[in-house]
Amino acid sequence: MKCKSLSMIAGGILGLALGLTWSFSALAQVDPLPSWNATPTKQAIVEFVGRVTKVGGPDFVAPAERIATFDNDGTLWVEQPMYVQLAFALDRLRAMAPLHPDWSYMEPFQSVLEGDVKASAKMDEHDIVQLIMMTHAGMTTDEFSKIVTDWLTTARDPRFKRPYTELVYQPMLELLSYLRANGFKTFIVSGGGVEFMRPWTEKVYGVAPEQVIGSSIKTNFQMRDGIPTLFRLPDLNFIDDKVGKPVGINETIGRRPIAAFGNSDGDLEMLQWTTISDGVRFGAIVHHTDAVREYAYDRQSHFGRLDVALDAAVANRWTVIDMKKDWKVIFPFDPR
Amino acid sequence: MKCKSLSMIAGGILGLALGLTWSFSALAQVDPLPSWNATPTKQAIVEFVGRVTKVGGPDFVAPAERIATFDNDGTLWVEQPMYVQLAFALDRLRAMAPLHPDWSYMEPFQSVLEGDVKASAKMDEHDIVQLIMMTHAGMTTDEFSKIVTDWLTTARDPRFKRPYTELVYQPMLELLSYLRANGFKTFIVSGGGVEFMRPWTEKVYGVAPEQVIGSSIKTNFQMRDGIPTLFRLPDLNFIDDKVGKPVGINETIGRRPIAAFGNSDGDLEMLQWTTISDGVRFGAIVHHTDAVREYAYDRQSHFGRLDVALDAAVANRWTVIDMKKDWKVIFPFDPR
Repeated sequence: MKCKSLSMIAGGILGLALGLTWSFSALAQVDPLPSWNATPTKQAIVEFVGRVTKVGGPDFVAPAERIATFDNDGTLWVEQPMYVQLAFALDRLRAMAPLHPDWSYMEPFQSVLEGDVKASAKMDEHDIVQLIMMTHAGMTTDEFSKIVTDWLTTARDPRFKRPYTELVYQPMLELLSYLRANGFKTFIVSGGGVEFMRPWTEKVYGVAPEQVIGSSIKTNFQMRDGIPTLFRLPDLNFIDDKVGKPVGINETIGRRPIAAFGNSDGDLEMLQWTTISDGVRFGAIVHHTDAVREYAYDRQSHFGRLDVALDAAVANRWTVIDMKKDWKVIFPFDPR
Repeated sequence: MKCKSLSMIAGGILGLALGLTWSFSALAQVDPLPSWNATPTKQAIVEFVGRVTKVGGPDFVAPAERIATFDNDGTLWVEQPMYVQLAFALDRLRAMAPLHPDWSYMEPFQSVLEGDVKASAKMDEHDIVQLIMMTHAGMTTDEFSKIVTDWLTTARDPRFKRPYTELVYQPMLELLSYLRANGFKTFIVSGGGVEFMRPWTEKVYGVAPEQVIGSSIKTNFQMRDGIPTLFRLPDLNFIDDKVGKPVGINETIGRRPIAAFGNSDGDLEMLQWTTISDGVRFGAIVHHTDAVREYAYDRQSHFGRLDVALDAAVANRWTVIDMKKDWKVIFPFDPR
């Protein structure tokens, strides 16, 4: 090979190496949380991640222990005017009613079926549990998954007129990706039904089925005509809410999270379990303060009440995310 | 730079590249399952993995769906002369008895405490559940984890005189690693206690706490003096055995496995749930046939009975692993 060619090759390699180095530096400057305004909230998140990922630093956490848990309703997607799963259950009530004439004798379901909107909004926890038993049981797990998927494809939110899977919080999608890019495993820990969430959380949030923890009804394994089936029974198995969240986290993950994100009093114990511990920990509450772009609610809300936990945030130094101030956009479809 | 130096550098780079290529080819030939004899069993495993990982092939399975589940007792480690966790529970019974004089009025526990070995071996499922309630509850989850860890450090198997965490099956350790190297997620699905397994399964098997599914008792979240605690209650939560295994798999993983490994009738439903499905699936039973190096047992065994599932293996074309014929060594400490 000629001397001049080798010199050119060596120069080329050197140039390429320098170019790549500069490029990686530039990439390192790209904001991983572009939908978050430059407020102390964003700073707190980035600082926390920096501390637990700094190799050799005093707060370093091994990747295997970087567990972050997220509530779903009101933390990752809308929960007004009611929980999405409640809207689903009411649609199922209406769809299944022709086969269940006995339901017209049961309140508040009779009023709901007659179109009384106030009756739906006033349903308490007992009513909702009963509604779940009525509408979420009596089919196999595969059949239920299909019912959920079909409903989410056609159902539209009454205000925004979009599929519910579009009513997710863009800044939280970025936060999920940012944490995973830094070696975190992201879990959902929700009071909602685990089988209601699993058909879509991987595609929408990047959270795989085995990383979704939620409430559940009992299932029953049977071989039927040589085919193995899991059948959903009208029997409560587990409520993954309030004191149930640390229980569910311990049962499924078996490690304590180092970061937790919630939005209501249902997340108080998860936040306590996560943050009152040795080592650097992060707890955050998504506070709904934006009536224009989304909804403003807290202490008086029927769904997603935030009261005790908002006070506890002060003493525990949890980060309160102000949706109005901290978020450039709310939904992926919001104009920038 | 001198022309001669550049020529040498270029030659060096070329030589290095060729060397690395040859090395990687050589590495590709290294047997990932060195403790498995070259039998049809080994061939079946390797062929299955090849089919589901072949990009563009008809049986390709996306990595996210490559779920493999493993029973523990009798599949990954010894379960004779009794389940290791039963030996633990009996040691706990003896350690705690001074504080529980009432236990000396309860059979079979009175006989056990008086040293009656036969009484221990004859304990049925009801006795074992009661024993678990007595010895595994009444402390926090952290305290229980420490009790388990301490016990495993000092306890010795009566025959091999080693810590139980050394009485694991070397060929299965290699299988776990081999599957993970091929993009599988490996879960344990055991009738044993999930909190009995979690303190050590990551270190011994490479299976993280969130990938361990097992039986459990109820826990209770409480803030005590400002400290969040999870307290273990003498109340059964879930038995992850037989029909319970598909239920547990669905609850925690939310995906059907594509490969399952068991050793007894307690794994029948897990094997059915995994293999009777569209697509290429793999089911295997570890058959204890080696009385010299380990134990030989199946249809008559008190612990780990293999009877119905052994017959079902024929019709379902599950691979029956013959420990005597298929394994070069049993334990990591066996001479080669």
